[in-house]
Amino acid sequence: MATEMAQQPAVLEALAGRSDAIAGAVRQVAPRPLAGTAIVARGSSDHASVYGRYLLELASGRPVSLVAPSLHLLYRARVDYTGQLAIAVSQSGRTPEIVRTLAALRASGACGLAITNDAASELAGAADLPVVLGAGEERAVPATKTVTAQLLAFALIARALGDVPFADEDLRVLPGAVAAVLGDPEPARALAAELAGEDRLVVTARGLLYGAALEAALKLQETSAISADGLSAADLRHGPIAIVTAGFPVLVLDGPGPAHADVAALIADLRARGARVWTIAPGGDLPLPDLHEGLLPIVAVVRAQQLARELALARDRDPDAPAGLRKVTAT
Amino acid sequence: MATEMAQQPAVLEALAGRSDAIAGAVRQVAPRPLAGTAIVARGSSDHASVYGRYLLELASGRPVSLVAPSLHLLYRARVDYTGQLAIAVSQSGRTPEIVRTLAALRASGACGLAITNDAASELAGAADLPVVLGAGEERAVPATKTVTAQLLAFALIARALGDVPFADEDLRVLPGAVAAVLGDPEPARALAAELAGEDRLVVTARGLLYGAALEAALKLQETSAISADGLSAADLRHGPIAIVTAGFPVLVLDGPGPAHADVAALIADLRARGARVWTIAPGGDLPLPDLHEGLLPIVAVVRAQQLARELALARDRDPDAPAGLRKVTAT
Repeated sequence: MATEMAQQPAVLEALAGRSDAIAGAVRQVAPRPLAGTAIVARGSSDHASVYGRYLLELASGRPVSLVAPSLHLLYRARVDYTGQLAIAVSQSGRTPEIVRTLAALRASGACGLAITNDAASELAGAADLPVVLGAGEERAVPATKTVTAQLLAFALIARALGDVPFADEDLRVLPGAVAAVLGDPEPARALAAELAGEDRLVVTARGLLYGAALEAALKLQETSAISADGLSAADLRHGPIAIVTAGFPVLVLDGPGPAHADVAALIADLRARGARVWTIAPGGDLPLPDLHEGLLPIVAVVRAQQLARELALARDRDPDAPAGLRKVTAT
Repeated sequence: MATEMAQQPAVLEALAGRSDAIAGAVRQVAPRPLAGTAIVARGSSDHASVYGRYLLELASGRPVSLVAPSLHLLYRARVDYTGQLAIAVSQSGRTPEIVRTLAALRASGACGLAITNDAASELAGAADLPVVLGAGEERAVPATKTVTAQLLAFALIARALGDVPFADEDLRVLPGAVAAVLGDPEPARALAAELAGEDRLVVTARGLLYGAALEAALKLQETSAISADGLSAADLRHGPIAIVTAGFPVLVLDGPGPAHADVAALIADLRARGARVWTIAPGGDLPLPDLHEGLLPIVAVVRAQQLARELALARDRDPDAPAGLRKVTAT
């Protein structure tokens, strides 16, 4: 896991270097006019998709849906996907459910993109256009470099379709920002020491950082078997906040964007309930660099990887091979 | 909470009795051709929406998306919703975020439906067509009768738009099935006694019952401050299953539909990990009646309400007024 985490600046730099080529290829295959976008994924890829959903809806100006695979594979729904761009995401490209759902959507009229790390995979073969991550083989069970590459792939696909909330200059700065975070493991180590005895935790964010919060929760679950519940800041207020009593640990992801005021108000409310709150944010407990909010989720995920790895070590667990998980999941 | 739970058969019977009137009204306002459906909700209403999403996609044959309100209210996305049916769901009709998001979608071209309990609410006024639940005032903080009414409202809207996986006869049988469950509180009481000392739990299901699993988890969080994590059976396998170690409690919702084989396989895997598994299912620990899977989620939610209430009592908490929650949430 540590080795693959350390490869992220190089992986992101190489992928960002292909941004114009990817934009050209996406523009060539995307339906015009675009009716909407439909994303198919599970696990970490699904969290990258939540981030992608925000960027794609902003950039394309058309509704984005996250597909329910069971509708197509179990309930045999007949849904007209004409004019839709379907994006299937799988690190290995070998999760049968994802391959079959993309095939079903294409058979229903969609143009199919695949975001995958394996150009020779079934998923790449099942797509009109594979967007290949080029992250190299990933051996640790908790996905790291392929997840941040997936996030960046979504950012680049969105950039191909319209205005995005980051500049090309931010793409150039990103690998260095990730390297700086990787070179600063001490804050994660300190927080891991504080969390070592906990068996539950809430992770929350809003807007563009929401997908990163879901991914942070999953990494903590996978590596440390902690019940980490990832929730949007707005959803947290609608009931689940009832579990946050005095001393309850909450990890908040925050950035400089338009959701900041709402997240700051939530932090105040959580502290008033007696919760122990830590932040992944510029100037936070696990500090983030000054980067436009549009790409900040990528760096926030790297901070979460650091924390997940340190927490596993603090709990005497093997972060590379969590008990009872396999690299490719068959559903 | 108990009083309002007991009103559910009558509320559902009255709403089902309006099924043809609702179908006529929905058909009159729904865009033709329909480009897609977009649903806006939070909390319990959002879980009803997950159920609605499956039924609406099956019935309408067009993609259904769950809207991210922050895109419209914070990030000022300009998204073309022409030809889309937008459905906003709020028990009180007074959650500002939901009212404003529906207004934004209508301003972007959508036809707006509102599912609400208050015909005089702002949300009803902001819609092209309010579908009023007629459940009567709900005073307990954990929503019960309005949630099952919302689920049925989605079923009736889907029925208006195409083929649904239940028959009109099932609508007639439903209130009696709910009454039978309410008259049989003993299984929930017994399970509550077993769960009384737990501080975490996973609740899972797949397909049409997935929304009911999310709602079951929320009810348990709200009334008993237990960290109940609601997950689709497929998502659970993609990482979160790492938290399920020997003795971990898991509640599974299962039915007679096409997702059953997958859920049964998951139960076997969970038991092999040493998990303690209980089911809300026909013939299960909290038994469900023989009803078509299309409407079964409504009865499953009633079983979950029973369990949540009994668990709160077993933990010496007030199920009607959980600590730190309000009836209307301002986000």
